Amino acid sequence: MPMEFQITCQDATTRARAGRLKLPAGTVETPAFMPVGSRASVRGLAAPQVRECGVQMVLANAYHLALRPGPEVVAAAGGLHSFMAWDGPILTDSGGYQVFSLAQHREVSDSGVLFRSPVDGAESFLGPRRCMEIQGMLGADVAMVLDQCPPYPCSQAEAETAVQRTLRWGAACKQFHDRDDQALFGIVQGSVFDELREESARRTVEIGFDGYAIGGVSVGEGEELRRHAVGFTAPLLPADRPRYLMGVGFPPDVLSAVGEGIDLFDCVAPTRMGRNATAFTPEGRLRLRNSGFKADRRPVQQGCDCLCCRLYSRAYLNHLFRVREMLGPILLSVHNVAFYARMMARAREAIGRGRFAQFRDGFLVRYLGGKEEG
Amino acid sequence: MPMEFQITCQDATTRARAGRLKLPAGTVETPAFMPVGSRASVRGLAAPQVRECGVQMVLANAYHLALRPGPEVVAAAGGLHSFMAWDGPILTDSGGYQVFSLAQHREVSDSGVLFRSPVDGAESFLGPRRCMEIQGMLGADVAMVLDQCPPYPCSQAEAETAVQRTLRWGAACKQFHDRDDQALFGIVQGSVFDELREESARRTVEIGFDGYAIGGVSVGEGEELRRHAVGFTAPLLPADRPRYLMGVGFPPDVLSAVGEGIDLFDCVAPTRMGRNATAFTPEGRLRLRNSGFKADRRPVQQGCDCLCCRLYSRAYLNHLFRVREMLGPILLSVHNVAFYARMMARAREAIGRGRFAQFRDGFLVRYLGGKEEG
Repeated sequence: MPMEFQITCQDATTRARAGRLKLPAGTVETPAFMPVGSRASVRGLAAPQVRECGVQMVLANAYHLALRPGPEVVAAAGGLHSFMAWDGPILTDSGGYQVFSLAQHREVSDSGVLFRSPVDGAESFLGPRRCMEIQGMLGADVAMVLDQCPPYPCSQAEAETAVQRTLRWGAACKQFHDRDDQALFGIVQGSVFDELREESARRTVEIGFDGYAIGGVSVGEGEELRRHAVGFTAPLLPADRPRYLMGVGFPPDVLSAVGEGIDLFDCVAPTRMGRNATAFTPEGRLRLRNSGFKADRRPVQQGCDCLCCRLYSRAYLNHLFRVREMLGPILLSVHNVAFYARMMARAREAIGRGRFAQFRDGFLVRYLGGKEEG
Repeated sequence: MPMEFQITCQDATTRARAGRLKLPAGTVETPAFMPVGSRASVRGLAAPQVRECGVQMVLANAYHLALRPGPEVVAAAGGLHSFMAWDGPILTDSGGYQVFSLAQHREVSDSGVLFRSPVDGAESFLGPRRCMEIQGMLGADVAMVLDQCPPYPCSQAEAETAVQRTLRWGAACKQFHDRDDQALFGIVQGSVFDELREESARRTVEIGFDGYAIGGVSVGEGEELRRHAVGFTAPLLPADRPRYLMGVGFPPDVLSAVGEGIDLFDCVAPTRMGRNATAFTPEGRLRLRNSGFKADRRPVQQGCDCLCCRLYSRAYLNHLFRVREMLGPILLSVHNVAFYARMMARAREAIGRGRFAQFRDGFLVRYLGGKEEG
């Protein structure tokens, strides 16, 4: 068995659950957030810094790594863990999302996607077999099936096509997947259409995977539709298997989804916002480039034990961003990654006490302070 | 006394000497190399990483910090050590070099330099009094006098003017300098003209400073003229005071100057070359972007104990630079800074054994491998 998953605690008043996900490279306490290292690097952070932030598991991307440096290079380096010096669990996204959102001149058929590499223009093909080959060579703890992620908005017919194709590709991926030290997760599509989500969930579960992801959200549909899709889909997935919400999100969305029984998350928000001078704090976001921080001697977040907050002031961060020193993006990425890891640890703790709703609501009152975040 | 300097060992066959420089923030074993953190940040490295690299002392720049964030902000933060979280010794360059090389529309007179800030176009003035005020507020362990650094080539008359002005400014800086917990170093100019170097050295020593710098080198004059200037000037400086060679340089130049009795160095080379995918190794420089490294599983430097070499392969660095991940510049900066620190530690050790010439020559044979470096 490449994976064991055990629910250790069910919250009292929400669907939130705490669990323990045992993977070849280690055990992940869930719910957990995975920082994104698409190209085998969580941007700006060396692996020991990622660990110091309290991160348990990271995400990498098969599409990006297939283009550069190529799965053969990673395999020859002893696999992704060794290549990126991250000895904890890793999940690789299949590249389905990227091949539809980034690649040019694509031709989609049931057998896969023919596209031109944005790197060198070379013709490439990504189908279920190749997708499993690539992820097998990368050697992450969890591989994802190849999926078709439709944009938003899309017609119900388009969403239906994506659902059928994702089911066909999922079954094929399961067939081609041959590493017994790697779990394989299926992906539920269906855009904003309940009946498609229902069909996609039911038939994905029929194929049978180690875990299940909700895909096709966070593509522009907005908070209300996203939350509906998550709340509708999560209960359709087996309670004893991990549930992974792909590409979500900002803290309010993450906590909302934890309350629906989601166990795993990934999003570029902590690192991308950090590079862009925006810090997450319990009182909401700070834009450190603002002149109001020029002489602010407080740390980004009082009481935070990350490298950034232990040693540096908001004034120093303001300075670094204003003079474009790369240490600014580095330090705020460290802080934001640590912020997310701590938020998840507190969520697990609250679930353990049967008080997740109180934790979530208290967090949101303080975090949003009456403001919405986009 | 803001500073004590003790020669602990004189080499047997060269002018190299090992010493101990006691400064308010700590003791520096010399000869030592200071990585450059012009804007209060050694590019890409948090302070604990700089320390881990074996660095004893860093350089910051009064010109850059006067423009942004302003010396008042740094002073209000408790000074430069606290602002940048570096608890070891710091030297601030006066900004003389920058005001001549970077600022626009400058008018130079004996009282100082009137220039337009490249940040906001505001008119600024840098003279001896303001220069000492700024460096006093920054609060480094060592301040530098305001100097005029002529470009190369320049006429003997221009070099003479720069020498006279630097002497006048130096005397004024000494007068205005009023922190008794901060050392003040004079600067010798004179371009490539021996008689000007001689006069500048003699009269700078007559003014009397805690230490003496050789300025106006590494401005395009080339290796031969640079080495001549250093070899000619160093013996003119008091043997019992630290000698600092400004802005130098690549490893061969640094070791050559150590052999002439230089104690302190600074240069952007380790960080700038690191950002540019170039690693220093005992066998010379590696350009990690080259495709030859794509599958090279060796560390950048075998046996190096820096973060980069402990955890990562040349193949990973090659990948990071090719996909423009910022971890590439970070890791190679770490390695290069550690490389320089180790080179200096080995130089000190060799001097201690009276065998600096052998060390230097052996280093160069291995490093250059018959090739010149630019």
